[in-house]
Amino acid sequence: MSLSKRLAEYVVETTYDDIPGEVVAFTKLCILDYFSSAIAGKDTPPIRKVEEMVEMLGGNEQASLINGGKSSVTNAALLNGAASHIVEQDDIHKSSIIHAATVVIPAALAIGESKKLDGKDLITAVVIGYEVCFRIGEAVSPSHYYYWHNTATCGTFGSAAATAKLLDLSVEQTVHALGSAGTQAAGLWEFIEDGAMSKQLHPGKAAMNGVIAGLLAEKDFSAASKILEGRRGFFEAMSDEYDADKITNGLGREFKIMENSFKVHASCRHTHHAMDLVSDFAREENLDPDEVEKIEVGTYAVAINITDNDDPQTVYQGKFSLQYCTALALVKQNGNLDTFTEENLWDEEIRHMMNKVTIFTDEAVDHAYPGKWGANVDIHLKNGETVTLTTEYPKGDPENHVTEDDLYEKFMVLAKAIDKSQAEEVAANILSLENADDLSSLFPYNVTVK
Amino acid sequence: MSLSKRLAEYVVETTYDDIPGEVVAFTKLCILDYFSSAIAGKDTPPIRKVEEMVEMLGGNEQASLINGGKSSVTNAALLNGAASHIVEQDDIHKSSIIHAATVVIPAALAIGESKKLDGKDLITAVVIGYEVCFRIGEAVSPSHYYYWHNTATCGTFGSAAATAKLLDLSVEQTVHALGSAGTQAAGLWEFIEDGAMSKQLHPGKAAMNGVIAGLLAEKDFSAASKILEGRRGFFEAMSDEYDADKITNGLGREFKIMENSFKVHASCRHTHHAMDLVSDFAREENLDPDEVEKIEVGTYAVAINITDNDDPQTVYQGKFSLQYCTALALVKQNGNLDTFTEENLWDEEIRHMMNKVTIFTDEAVDHAYPGKWGANVDIHLKNGETVTLTTEYPKGDPENHVTEDDLYEKFMVLAKAIDKSQAEEVAANILSLENADDLSSLFPYNVTVK
Repeated sequence: MSLSKRLAEYVVETTYDDIPGEVVAFTKLCILDYFSSAIAGKDTPPIRKVEEMVEMLGGNEQASLINGGKSSVTNAALLNGAASHIVEQDDIHKSSIIHAATVVIPAALAIGESKKLDGKDLITAVVIGYEVCFRIGEAVSPSHYYYWHNTATCGTFGSAAATAKLLDLSVEQTVHALGSAGTQAAGLWEFIEDGAMSKQLHPGKAAMNGVIAGLLAEKDFSAASKILEGRRGFFEAMSDEYDADKITNGLGREFKIMENSFKVHASCRHTHHAMDLVSDFAREENLDPDEVEKIEVGTYAVAINITDNDDPQTVYQGKFSLQYCTALALVKQNGNLDTFTEENLWDEEIRHMMNKVTIFTDEAVDHAYPGKWGANVDIHLKNGETVTLTTEYPKGDPENHVTEDDLYEKFMVLAKAIDKSQAEEVAANILSLENADDLSSLFPYNVTVK
Repeated sequence: MSLSKRLAEYVVETTYDDIPGEVVAFTKLCILDYFSSAIAGKDTPPIRKVEEMVEMLGGNEQASLINGGKSSVTNAALLNGAASHIVEQDDIHKSSIIHAATVVIPAALAIGESKKLDGKDLITAVVIGYEVCFRIGEAVSPSHYYYWHNTATCGTFGSAAATAKLLDLSVEQTVHALGSAGTQAAGLWEFIEDGAMSKQLHPGKAAMNGVIAGLLAEKDFSAASKILEGRRGFFEAMSDEYDADKITNGLGREFKIMENSFKVHASCRHTHHAMDLVSDFAREENLDPDEVEKIEVGTYAVAINITDNDDPQTVYQGKFSLQYCTALALVKQNGNLDTFTEENLWDEEIRHMMNKVTIFTDEAVDHAYPGKWGANVDIHLKNGETVTLTTEYPKGDPENHVTEDDLYEKFMVLAKAIDKSQAEEVAANILSLENADDLSSLFPYNVTVK
């Protein structure tokens, strides 16, 4: 049996009732976190450009746009996919290197809303979409990632799988959907050399292409039956090495969405371990920054290589400076999007604290990487005390799950572009999603604030 | 200077006045030939499925659909691209292995019509689009072709270049358009194992994706500046070997569209040499098939490997049988789409003639392949005479150009899905395209028959 057929059977056979309660609860947090990033990103220049194009093209009013109004399901998938991958706050699945929310959820939302499906249908489709793209990403990692943006390429399969589920396709049709997804899969890393807006185009197009794959499959538009493992298929063409067993091992028994990681802080993931430690400590102790003599951060070498910058000149550089991020988190007792401002970049107190931070490679921590993205932090106080803090996983990793409160707080910070009452209503609707019968109520401009 | 910038400067600087008269004339034939295949393909099941999806999605009425009506430029590019790549009659550029018409022309038509541009603009954009995708295809051939459908992948750049020209983009914007094209480029050969409909999805999506790339670039949506030659770009990711000089050598001085080949017969290209020879001879001599004792076809080994079938069971198999195609062309004095019917497949006279055909590898012809796709044919007549016919290039190759009459005749056969008077009007409008000021007049349902 082909891998596509195995995946297709999984897609067709999995129902809401198969999903444990804790997975349902976690999936709702994934959807809440999607909207955090999408709302925070919707008014940025690249997303405005996509929005303008979508408006120019037009389309039947089938699905809600994150910027307001409705358009075709493909336009909605494109815009809503692009919007959620710009503020660098979206989820990440480490072993497949995929940001699934920004691809799978916009596709599922668009099809779900257009078909007047309900919250349980959406949850089911999202669980399935994550499972499919995570497994494909794991199968081709790490070699695929050198040239290809997994979120875009593997994500297309996730978008197609979610679409197939919501359209209630047969196994044969779902095989076609996966085939059409794979043969549309695209997204080269070359854009990163220019820091170009392709970063946002990729997930938008992946969401849209998966929707197209599903819509065509619904009409029995045929595609490769062995798109993954075939001689001229996705694996052979787009990775040096691959492990097909990753597709099937435990399929239908595991819920890989539970391995998804969230970002609490609005900076590079390699700064989060220290930020977790010092912000929690500062908050718990209500620490006066003046009491601090010196901070030593020991972590794995990759973190040092990427984030060693003791004089960041832009907010963006600040997000990639372990010294700055540590100082910021200690002084502000937080590292959310609101704290990464131009004002805080040049804030004297934070700059002063930054000069007290030294960073180094800790051999033991480094040895545990990449399984564990940990840090040991020593805070030397002026009173002579030294506080030693340690963590193996940044908050938001599956081994150190965030709480609903953490993600609700993040949502409220990231959703500042909309009215607070709208934001609260959207969050409430998402957090009770299994009871929702109108998926348009998840979009800010559609909610009727009570 | 990056390759993208070189190409972008070429796109921006090339104007209608730079295009020699013979290139203009030839380009009009390319466009006529596009419509031949598109009209012949528009009512086939895969294209109907795409049409239904496009209609379901909806869009502003910007550009004409080959099936009638108007929709958004992206929908028009998708449908009109898919339609022209199904009857296996569309053009081919041998050294880049690209069918350019089915990707470049739908994109140019959609943008040209939506912007109310004229025939000269369309001709210019088509010349430029062909040039760009042919050069990229040549640069990555042959290694790219093993996994990737050049028409789809390289074609996306051609569609984007044509779009950029028609939108009058700056050099910088055109670089962005090429970058967004390359990072959307997709299309795996794996579908061929199933004979799946991805064959039609590929050019449709390539046309559409190129349009998206151009529309976004118009809004300064940025993309990789070295999408071709960059370390994580198109060349490195998607070909084992490449020759970047193919992009720049002679750029702006040559018109590669003149290297384009057309298909006169509705069968595999490897059968055309013999079909040319025997159909011309039979027509000129008004040959009675009963006079023929035996026909010996000597050609290159690849043709024998692919088309040696002395008992085809389906019309499709007939198109890949050199014995059948030779017999058909001799008896019917033609090999156009009308002759490849179920009736003719089982016609006793043709079957009888087929049994008189023997095929073999001719060492001299084989030696000249793939530069020349030739054949030597000996027709032994019952009166004892032997007629020896020889050709080095099938008709429609650049070395053996078809005439306007050949392609007009082909158009009228392939355009039978529409009224003859409509077809004549469309052909007349295309053949006087440099005088057209309304590009919608090239579409059958828009013409006002005089």
